Amino acid sequence: MKELRDAILKQGFGIGHDIVKVDMFLNHRLDIALLTNIGQAFQEAFAGQQVDMILTIEASGIAAAITTAQAFGNLPVIFAKKSKTTSTINRDVYEAKVFSFTHNTENYIRIAKSYLPANANVLIIDDFLANGEAAEGLAEIVRQAGANVVGIGVCIEKGFQAGGQKLRNEGYRVVSLATVTGIENGKLMLAEEKTDA
Amino acid sequence: MKELRDAILKQGFGIGHDIVKVDMFLNHRLDIALLTNIGQAFQEAFAGQQVDMILTIEASGIAAAITTAQAFGNLPVIFAKKSKTTSTINRDVYEAKVFSFTHNTENYIRIAKSYLPANANVLIIDDFLANGEAAEGLAEIVRQAGANVVGIGVCIEKGFQAGGQKLRNEGYRVVSLATVTGIENGKLMLAEEKTDA
Repeated sequence: MKELRDAILKQGFGIGHDIVKVDMFLNHRLDIALLTNIGQAFQEAFAGQQVDMILTIEASGIAAAITTAQAFGNLPVIFAKKSKTTSTINRDVYEAKVFSFTHNTENYIRIAKSYLPANANVLIIDDFLANGEAAEGLAEIVRQAGANVVGIGVCIEKGFQAGGQKLRNEGYRVVSLATVTGIENGKLMLAEEKTDA
Repeated sequence: MKELRDAILKQGFGIGHDIVKVDMFLNHRLDIALLTNIGQAFQEAFAGQQVDMILTIEASGIAAAITTAQAFGNLPVIFAKKSKTTSTINRDVYEAKVFSFTHNTENYIRIAKSYLPANANVLIIDDFLANGEAAEGLAEIVRQAGANVVGIGVCIEKGFQAGGQKLRNEGYRVVSLATVTGIENGKLMLAEEKTDA
């Protein structure tokens, strides 16, 4: 997606070998015009499929999830909540364990069962795809609900980490609007734009 | 705001004397059509004033902040990040301490200094106003930056808690789109709709 690639190249930068810094427009300060276009791009990418709701994870997935839901004509958005502790005693929630490579910690993500009906067609949206732990956790919750993952849309895929390949090998349709292939002296390298996104 | 009042009365409910449960449309599952109207209502309420950016706090303030920014013609949104620990060593962030009455814990909220310029006219948006701690923390950060609080817009004010009165006594213009005055046997009581919101 051209506007996102331009924003990454003009405003983003890398730190070390694997930190992609884009919080000036994507996940701390939000560029709302760009995010509205991102939602439109996800809608176009998944337009041929039945989508009943958008699923994401707090906090930085919420923005793109909302604009995608708007582009689909105001679908509901559900965002999973994160917690340091498990909630196995609570029978009203679906829960999955998510390992954070960034912080080297385990988190639990959960969703109230009543908001994720069986057989719902769920589009997973997130800001980043790195090792794929968040998307795997969301897909695990969809599976627990007996619902269906239509696909996984991410704004920025870190192509040098394993999550995208892993999810595609598992059969998920993954659409990344931009793919960072590496960091060279603080500069973010992008893959060629694909025609499908 | 009629649509929000209707949603509160039809879908929301109370637990005990002070828990207002509206997470089926406002802060876990998001009703995007309603939230888009909420953004429009905030824009109308603050239309006479210069607003340069929307400030909120992760995670549940983000949705209304985004739709408000869209209603203002795509203003930038900045969301403060929460942390259990202080970050006084980091000179690149503004930070404020926020006490959570709900969880009886202290949190720190912070914003990268570079995204909040001096003299900016900042509209604070949040989903709830109860004791006012979050709004006070955000206003404190705006003050640290030498920027200006245009006003504070909240979707739901808990009128039986002290935050709204405290903020108004301090001189802030507070706009609540709906005010819950109490809970009776699980039913949410609403104040009469005011003409200014």
